[in-house]
Parts: sequence; C-alpha cells; structure tokens
Amino acid sequence: MQAFLITFCISDMDLECASQETVKQGLLARGWPPIKGFSKHVKTKVLEFFSHLIKLGQDDPRRVVHSLKAGLALTLVSLFYYYQPLYKSFGVSAMWAVITVVVVFEFSVGATLGKGVNRGLATLLAGGLAVGAHQLANLSGQIGEPIVLGIFVFLQAAVSTFVRFCPQIKARYDYGLLIFILTFSLISISGFRDDEVLELVHKRLLTVLIGGSTCVIISVLLFPVWAGQDLHNLIASNMEKLGIFLEGFGDEYFKMPEDGESKEDRPFLQGYKSVLDSKTNEDALANFARWEPRHGRFQFRHPWKQYLKIGALTRKCAYRIESLNGHLYADIQAKREIRSKIQETCTTMSMESGKALKELSMAIKTMVKPFAADIHIENSKSSVKNLDTLLKSGLWDDETDLLEVVPVATVASLLIDVVTCTAEIAESVNELATMLKFEVVEPTVSTEKPETGQPKIGIS
Amino acid sequence: MQAFLITFCISDMDLECASQETVKQGLLARGWPPIKGFSKHVKTKVLEFFSHLIKLGQDDPRRVVHSLKAGLALTLVSLFYYYQPLYKSFGVSAMWAVITVVVVFEFSVGATLGKGVNRGLATLLAGGLAVGAHQLANLSGQIGEPIVLGIFVFLQAAVSTFVRFCPQIKARYDYGLLIFILTFSLISISGFRDDEVLELVHKRLLTVLIGGSTCVIISVLLFPVWAGQDLHNLIASNMEKLGIFLEGFGDEYFKMPEDGESKEDRPFLQGYKSVLDSKTNEDALANFARWEPRHGRFQFRHPWKQYLKIGALTRKCAYRIESLNGHLYADIQAKREIRSKIQETCTTMSMESGKALKELSMAIKTMVKPFAADIHIENSKSSVKNLDTLLKSGLWDDETDLLEVVPVATVASLLIDVVTCTAEIAESVNELATMLKFEVVEPTVSTEKPETGQPKIGIS
Repeated sequence: MQAFLITFCISDMDLECASQETVKQGLLARGWPPIKGFSKHVKTKVLEFFSHLIKLGQDDPRRVVHSLKAGLALTLVSLFYYYQPLYKSFGVSAMWAVITVVVVFEFSVGATLGKGVNRGLATLLAGGLAVGAHQLANLSGQIGEPIVLGIFVFLQAAVSTFVRFCPQIKARYDYGLLIFILTFSLISISGFRDDEVLELVHKRLLTVLIGGSTCVIISVLLFPVWAGQDLHNLIASNMEKLGIFLEGFGDEYFKMPEDGESKEDRPFLQGYKSVLDSKTNEDALANFARWEPRHGRFQFRHPWKQYLKIGALTRKCAYRIESLNGHLYADIQAKREIRSKIQETCTTMSMESGKALKELSMAIKTMVKPFAADIHIENSKSSVKNLDTLLKSGLWDDETDLLEVVPVATVASLLIDVVTCTAEIAESVNELATMLKFEVVEPTVSTEKPETGQPKIGIS
Repeated sequence: MQAFLITFCISDMDLECASQETVKQGLLARGWPPIKGFSKHVKTKVLEFFSHLIKLGQDDPRRVVHSLKAGLALTLVSLFYYYQPLYKSFGVSAMWAVITVVVVFEFSVGATLGKGVNRGLATLLAGGLAVGAHQLANLSGQIGEPIVLGIFVFLQAAVSTFVRFCPQIKARYDYGLLIFILTFSLISISGFRDDEVLELVHKRLLTVLIGGSTCVIISVLLFPVWAGQDLHNLIASNMEKLGIFLEGFGDEYFKMPEDGESKEDRPFLQGYKSVLDSKTNEDALANFARWEPRHGRFQFRHPWKQYLKIGALTRKCAYRIESLNGHLYADIQAKREIRSKIQETCTTMSMESGKALKELSMAIKTMVKPFAADIHIENSKSSVKNLDTLLKSGLWDDETDLLEVVPVATVASLLIDVVTCTAEIAESVNELATMLKFEVVEPTVSTEKPETGQPKIGIS
C-alpha cells in the first residue's frame, strides 16, 4: 500500500497527475534506457519522498507521537483476540473494537472525543430503534418481514442522509449520523437471519464502548494534543504574522528600488498569506475544541466563538495587507520626494500597528492583559492624525502631479484601514481577556521609544 | 437519533451551545411553566428546524435525490441478506457490502469513485500483506504468533498513520490508508483465530467490490452529480458575483448619502463575500473531479488545475473588492465636487471590469470563447488611461485639500488593481479556452454602448 501510494504521490508531485504507467511509456518513447534509467528515476523520487516525510516529522514531532499512539491503541484492542478469556466473552464481535479504534482515533483529543461520543450514542440509539424495527417486522409474517425491513432501511437511510446536509449538524454530528445509518441497517438486516438481536446490539455497543474508550484514554493520557490549544496558538500566530509584515512594510516600501536589492525575496513579507485561507482550519479546530474537557488554562465552556471572531477580524486585516503587498511590488511608484514627505508617518502607522498586533498575539499566547498594545494603537492613531495634518498643511507644492500622489495616497489609506482593523482586533482581544480573566502584569515597556522618533505614549 | 440531533441542533442554534438540560433549568429558574411552556418552546424550534430542512431541499433539490439514491443503494445491497441464494454464498460477510455502501456513497460521482477505488485497492493490498504477515507469524510457534502479529499491526498502523499526514497523500488517498490499516489489522488479527485467512480475504474483497460497484453504478446512472461540473459552475459563479459587485459599485459609491437611502442593505453588494473563503471548497471539488471519467463536455484529464488557477486569481480580485467595499461604508467621504471629477472614469472602470467578469463567467458556463470580455477589458484599461490624463491635466484647483483627495484616490487606485486582476483572470480563462477548444461564436454584443457614455470598442 505504501509503495503504491509513494509511486502515485510521486507521479502526482512530479508529473501532475500522470500515472506511473504513463510516465514509463513517456520515458520509453523518449528513448530512455528501458529499466535502468527508469528505476534510477524512481529511486531518486522515493528518496525525495522519504526526506519529505522526515521533514513532516521534524516540523511537528507530535505527528510521530500520534502515529505511535495509534499503533499502541490498535495493538491494545487486538488483545481481545489474542487473550483467550477476553475472546471467550466477545468472540468475533471484538472486531468492532478494532474497527472503532481505527476510525475514531484522531490527532486531537477533541476530534477523538467527538467521534467517540458520536459513535457511542449513534450505536445506542440506532441499536434501540433497530430492535424496535425488528419486532415490528416480525409481526408481518415471513413474506412481509423483508419488505417491512427494506422499507425501514430505505426510509432511515434517506432521512438521515438528507439531515447530514444541514450545516449545523454536519459540523458536529455528521459522523454520528453515518454510524446511525450503518448500525440501524446492520442490526435490522442481521435480525432477519439471527433472532438474537438484543444480544447483537449489546455486544456491538460494548465493543464500540471498549474501542472508543481505549482511544479517548490513550489520546488524553499520553502526550495529549488539544484542539483548543491549537486554535489558541493558531489565532495568536496569525496575528503575529500580520504584525511581522507590518513592522517590515514601512521600510520595504519606502526603500528605493535603486538600493540594488530585489524586494521579491523577503520571506517575512509573505508569511501573512497563510492567514487569508485559515478560516476552514479555525472552524474545524473550534468544532473539535468544543468537545474537549477542562485542560490547563482552558475550561469546558471556553469562549471558542470569541476566538473565531478574532480570527475573522484578523483575516479582514489580512485582506487589506494583501492589497498593501500589491503596492510593494507595483511598477509605478511615486517619486522619492513625494514619498519622503509622508514616509515617517506611514512608517510609524505600519510599525505601531505591527507592534500592537505582535503584543496582542503575545497577550493571547501568555494569557496576560495586553497593556502595551493600547499604547501602540494610540501611537498609530496619532500618526493617522499627523498624516491628516500633514495633508491639510499644504506641504505639497502646487506643481505636484496628482497622478504621482495616487499610489502613496492609496498606501496611506490602506494603512489607515489597517490601523482601524488593528483597533477592532485589540477590542475583541480585550473582550476575550475579560471573559477569561487574563492576568494583569505591570507593564515593563511603557518607557520604550517608538523606533521612528519621539516617544508618544498615551496620547490620543 | 434524529430527535436527539434536532434537540442538540436547536439548542446550538438558539442558545449557542447550551445543552437542552441547561436550557430547561434556565427556563425553570426564570419561573416558566414547568412543562407546558418548555414543550411549546421546543415545538416552535422543531418547526423551525423542519422549515430549515425544507429550505435546504429547495435550495438544491439534488440533495433530496441524493438521499433517495443512498436509501436505494442500501436497500439493494441488503438483498444479500434477504435473498436466500445470495445469502448462501456470502453469509454474514454480506455485512461488508452494507458497510461499504454506507461509507462510500457520497454526493458527487468523483467522491464516490475516489472512495470506492481507495477502498477496493486498499482492501486488496492490505489483504495480500495480511496473508503474508499471517504466514510469517505462523512460523514463530504458538507463543510467538501473537507477539509477531502484534508487532506487525503496531508497525503498519504507526507507519500508515504517519503517511496520512503527507498533504499530497491526504488529499487523494487518506481514505485508502484508513481502510488499509483497518483491513490489515482485521485480517491479520482474525487469522489468529481462524485459519481460513485466504477465504476471509476473498470474501471481504468480493463484498467490498459488490458494495463499491453498487454505489458507483447508482451514482453514475441515476441523476449523477459531477464534482467537475460543480467546480466549473462554482468558478463561473464566483466570477459572476464579483462582476455584479463591480457593476453596482460605481453608482453606489458616487451616490451621495443625502439621497436618503441607506447603503447597508444592498444584498447584491454582499454576494462577493462567499468568494473570499471558497478555496477549501474548490480544492475539494478539484480532488473529486480528478477521479471522474469523461462526462458531457468534461474529459478524464480535464485541466482542473487551470480552474484552480482561475479560482485563485478570482479570490485575489475579491480581496481588492473587500477593501473597496470598506470604502463604500466609510464615514469619511470625499466632497461631492472632488468625487464628481473622477466619477465618470471610475464608474466606467468598475462597470467595464464587472461586465468583463460577467462575460468571462458566461464564457466558462457556455464554453464559448470570451469575445466581448476583451472589449470590456480594453474599455476599462482605456478608462485607467483617461484617469491618468485627468489627474495630470490639473483639473484640480490649487485650493483642493489633499486630505479630501485621499479616499477618492484610494478607490481609484483599488479600481486600477481590480482592472489588472480582471485582465489576469481573462488571460487565464483564455488559456482554459485554448486548452478546451472553446467554441468560437460570432460576437453579437460588439456594437453595444457602454452605459456610461460614448462607445469605446477596441480602443487600447
């Protein structure tokens, strides 16, 4: 299987979805040594694949731990087969414990718990209903029984499948509905051949509970991965990425192209891009997190919705930054004298918003009230006012070509938007801080001077 | 199960994740009639839930059809239990056919085929390997056997679980790997109790094939839902949504607030928002579409990557539009005389880009070469030039406050970005048109006048 996947994956990565056979034929057509060259090619690709796997493990060692945990859980439940006294009581039904472990064991505690609870409850309910359906069908005689059972199976499958389209249900109970359809069908159909339906339901439920609790226990006790913690970190790191961009933007934008270097290869200016598409990930993590019990600094009814709100505002800010980024590489740049006039205020706006975002990110990470962020936001707001004054002051001579002002004006205006977004983010982080009673720590940064000039603290 | 879900879902929708028990207690505490009031409350909510379901069906009737198809497929495979000659040859193994149908039957043909192929191949490969593992374990004596089997199960589970983290594999073969772990564990573990391993593998494979092919046949023959077609439509409709915004933007922006109406309630200006988050959906559809055989105007190796490219460019344009939308509702608006100076050019830019996007969308939908789009893009580009001239011409008196120019300049600049994005989208749609040999139809719109003034066709 792995070998099969490796070849598929490699051909995917390498030749954009051409299958291995096509690759081989293509190579042969080009007169490649029929086997030697091809096998060498495959060898290189296999090596590449393995180094890719190693990188996956290095990027997040929890993945390696999770894989070992999955192996352990599976080996544990397989004891129901190997150990005679256990096998005696369950027999082949022990298979259901194995199946449950394979399908329920997920990366985070929340996902595992969610699937486990879904599977357990769905098996219980479907089992109960199937027993009822079996009794009803029994009343209708030998010919009528399969017809009545068939109608029940059809109806429940159709209705449950349809209910799965409901977005609110899909988010949390999709797996439960799947298992409901599965269990109801299996038990009511099996009942046709085997009259020990109650026994069947009982065994199935028990093995599912054993499999499910094995997963949950291993997932909680051995190096747990909490979806809530991941969401918390994701929201904080997204904010930080925007902060890094903004801190660097001012200098990058106002640096003249004739300085020699190309602006294109600045990886720190590209980090924000992942924020643009993080909604799906955030939603999934929040759904998992809602299943998780109290752990560390997170309670059972932790305000995950507030995290999603902060995430949405961060993305709104990222959209503005995407527009700003376009101006960084635009062909038409304003003249040096025009740019230099607003350079200081724009750089301060960008730098201070960036610092505020990084402070807010740090506040979330450490769960400490964001004190310094307010100062940075005030600084950025007063820069906006400075800019207004500057523009009103007629600092510009009458000769200034309006056409050359447009790019700079746009950047300034987008930065003003960014300042507004940052203030909104700060407000919702403060709401979170109140909800979660973030620690209050005396500020140590209050005397820090903004990098671009005079200290401006607490002015508004 | 449905009842359980309904209550959960309702409490979710209504009281933001409070469980029903909490709701009840809360209501009791507020002195509500203990049962009557509560049951009435639940009744209203249940009615709301059902009307929500009806709306889901009305929004996309294919959902209803899919549910009926799922019921049909399940009823068909259950014949293996009801019909004596069939039951004789498979016995309780027929259960695997039922399980396969429940888990493999998906909304689109591509998703069903992908899962079916994954399940079939994974069962085959895992079955083969498990037989080998069983033989090897057999050699190690009665005490050694469970230990060797345990080691095999642990290793394959850990390795396969880890490989599932690889993004390229996750996208296409995640389900296959899950089934690989499942089948390998089941067969190698069962082998410990049952020496008829080959028989087991054979039966399992056959029932999986029966279940899988039932799904694929029903999914292809009865009102098929093609993921490829859905992706095609999604890309086209996303473009159309941006087009609708841009066509309306100019008039909305330059309409003065004192005109009385509030700008906030313009649903056609909000349609673009869904485009911002459509990446996950597009990626999933493209992954499913790659499994689909030739159907209608789509070939097996249809250039789905090109669709994703167009989708990414559309989203890039949507980010600019999100910034533009912010200016629509901004508190600080430029003075009427300033805005009126560039009103015509900006409205034309917006209108023509919008028309171009709608033309491109229509071109994709009908698979006809986008002829008129080029004209609209040329018009929008020449508007950009007009704007440049306008700004250079010193149309502005020296008294103009630069501060008041900034918002208008930003909108103009964002519109210029939008024009650039539109041109990029047009280029990639043209690439698609070449790849797919879109039909060439003589243009009928070439004499149409742009709504905002003189005809400008073919000017560049």
